[in-house]
Amino acid sequence: MNSTPTICAPATAPGGALALIRISGPNAIACADAIFSKSLADAPARTSLFGLITNDDGTPLDEAVVTIFRAPHSYTGEDCVEISSHGSPYIISETLRLLARHGCHMAQPGEFTQRAFLAGKIDLTQAEAVADLIAATTSAQHAAALSQLRGSITTQLAALNAQLLELTSLLELELDFSDHEDIQFASRPHLLQLTQELSNQVHHLIESHATGQAIRQGVPVAIIGAPNVGKSTLLNRLVGEERAIVSPLQGTTRDIVEDTVVISGITFRFLDTAGLRHTADPIERLGQQRSLQAAEKARIILMLTEPGVPWPDIDIKTGQTLIRRINKTDDFSALNGIGLDGLRQELLQAIPPIDADAAVITSARQHDILCQAHAALAAVATALTSGQPSDLVAEDLRQTLHLIGQLTGTTITSQDTLNNIFSHFCIGK
Amino acid sequence: MNSTPTICAPATAPGGALALIRISGPNAIACADAIFSKSLADAPARTSLFGLITNDDGTPLDEAVVTIFRAPHSYTGEDCVEISSHGSPYIISETLRLLARHGCHMAQPGEFTQRAFLAGKIDLTQAEAVADLIAATTSAQHAAALSQLRGSITTQLAALNAQLLELTSLLELELDFSDHEDIQFASRPHLLQLTQELSNQVHHLIESHATGQAIRQGVPVAIIGAPNVGKSTLLNRLVGEERAIVSPLQGTTRDIVEDTVVISGITFRFLDTAGLRHTADPIERLGQQRSLQAAEKARIILMLTEPGVPWPDIDIKTGQTLIRRINKTDDFSALNGIGLDGLRQELLQAIPPIDADAAVITSARQHDILCQAHAALAAVATALTSGQPSDLVAEDLRQTLHLIGQLTGTTITSQDTLNNIFSHFCIGK
Repeated sequence: MNSTPTICAPATAPGGALALIRISGPNAIACADAIFSKSLADAPARTSLFGLITNDDGTPLDEAVVTIFRAPHSYTGEDCVEISSHGSPYIISETLRLLARHGCHMAQPGEFTQRAFLAGKIDLTQAEAVADLIAATTSAQHAAALSQLRGSITTQLAALNAQLLELTSLLELELDFSDHEDIQFASRPHLLQLTQELSNQVHHLIESHATGQAIRQGVPVAIIGAPNVGKSTLLNRLVGEERAIVSPLQGTTRDIVEDTVVISGITFRFLDTAGLRHTADPIERLGQQRSLQAAEKARIILMLTEPGVPWPDIDIKTGQTLIRRINKTDDFSALNGIGLDGLRQELLQAIPPIDADAAVITSARQHDILCQAHAALAAVATALTSGQPSDLVAEDLRQTLHLIGQLTGTTITSQDTLNNIFSHFCIGK
Repeated sequence: MNSTPTICAPATAPGGALALIRISGPNAIACADAIFSKSLADAPARTSLFGLITNDDGTPLDEAVVTIFRAPHSYTGEDCVEISSHGSPYIISETLRLLARHGCHMAQPGEFTQRAFLAGKIDLTQAEAVADLIAATTSAQHAAALSQLRGSITTQLAALNAQLLELTSLLELELDFSDHEDIQFASRPHLLQLTQELSNQVHHLIESHATGQAIRQGVPVAIIGAPNVGKSTLLNRLVGEERAIVSPLQGTTRDIVEDTVVISGITFRFLDTAGLRHTADPIERLGQQRSLQAAEKARIILMLTEPGVPWPDIDIKTGQTLIRRINKTDDFSALNGIGLDGLRQELLQAIPPIDADAAVITSARQHDILCQAHAALAAVATALTSGQPSDLVAEDLRQTLHLIGQLTGTTITSQDTLNNIFSHFCIGK
């Protein structure tokens, strides 16, 4: 019956005063009981017990606080135990060794969250948000991950899913009556309208990915300008006034980043670019080539010049935002800090606005699946407008449902579709 | 009334899946209550509550598990709260910022343990053991620290203290009757015998410091021998068979350590020594001088040679242990792994035996105070044998008591001495 292994792992990083070890699975309480001085079998759930972790020979390993969580009222939905001990590497490794001896397996990365998903405590988008939340270093990264963990995408997908099921049910009902030609339970124009609404919703989610990427990876900005127009001064000024936490970002690209500046919780990554001017020096030309390459990858081109110096000659690509400033003037001066607030606002405006409550797609997996779903919905629309038979339309709809199911991790069986029909229509009674 | 500030700090290292933040002090529960979605004021102690950490504007910061501990049943003896949140640097810093806004001070290093000491939950030797326990990387370091935390030194000092108080009480009683000359409540030979017994106990503790140092800092070993007798082979062999955790040790000296080998939980630090032979090469002579310097600092000199090569010419200092091996023979071969177990045993025998239950002095502070206490007891013995008056003997005894009080952190007031007299003798009644 209990083929699921019981797993354990440290939940905190080594090097602190305290360490937290987590155990989850059918034998979690028994395993913890075997190494703890107080009996846990009948211990009340969610109550901290102070006692001793004991070695197999009964000698103490550490003083610890143990808390048990009984299924399904735990993070994983299984029986769980948290052991809070002193944070020494020795104690952590010995405790894990003891637990292993009593049958615990060492947990794989993300295995607790995976079990929470398998137990239906959270869906896949929420599971993905857990990792983002822990890695978050800026307020925007944090807000996006927390919103997703608390179900912003889940809710939107659930609504989408319900509407898709409705559509599919209507069409599959027609298939059941396929002997009787020309029976249509749903008018084609109505189906088309619904399909287009769904397509818009999916498109909206897909578009949020640009914001999600800006939040998660930072917005690459290239400051382009002739030498000595004040590029470095401007960058230093922006960095110097920065008050947020700046730390190495996970998942950032390998561009040479000169500096990062956090504005309203969004990280702007200023790419290392050399000054642009006409030159015959081959070394300098090489530097300029690197500048142009950096500019190509940038989301924002911040073009800087000063009175009497022409704008640099550079192509702006589709999707790039150009911001221009004439430095060393009454309106803008990097040295004197004039016009910086306006510049920051313009930088922020270059990325899509962030609604705190709105679902923002941050993962490439979600983005890819949504793009496929969008294409499938387009196929549904085409099938409807070209008067294709119900079964072909239903096929495309089922594909969309399958994709949404992949997003959340729920499996859409045909039984679900059938159930949906019966609950709505009660045919045969 | 509540002049003690409420303090907070992360108790776990950054970078884990989860983080633990600790709050302690008179307003601990109120502060946590102010940032948590569930009411904590009347929450049961030692019960984990799942809820939301909320920002000042009511938006969620994180999902968290909060556990409260009510005074005096907590680590510090004060009201305490533990917040277990996700481990992101952003969440940790924001939670601390919220707590600060509600009046919490950031805790100084060791401040929770200091409060546990001030509340009388632990004495100073136990407080010192907490830091050792957390830093422990080998089983011997761990065992010494845990034993000390669980009161091995406390118990021994308490017994010592009680005997010293007894002695002092007898002498101070004589002082109360100083108008009546020649009154002696305690026979001088008996006092002298007791003093010598106490002195032996203190000496025993002082001697344990050598073991304590070996455990804590590792045992420096110099392998000395002519080039090509197999020094490196031996070291690689010892290191290669090592199975324990090896990590950078705190508090180790700045000797150039070639490698560390953990044998039965004791770290042996092999110092970098160059081969010794007669040479005219000034560079090589310089290297040899460094070898000799390393040898001087070593606790163990492991002299290695091979058949036909004379033993290196080196002075063994007092306190150093010499171990000699003739390599490349039937009895001992680094290359073939012959005789290594015997060598390991001899290395272990070079340090004082470790009794798992015995108190081991690991801190220099404890060692210094005990040396002073030993000197004070010697002064007591001298005063007794030379027939000094009671008040001078009592003075030296009080000094010893004061030193033991410094060790444990208890203040020995003269009231203590008086109380001890009354409780034992009940004079006047």
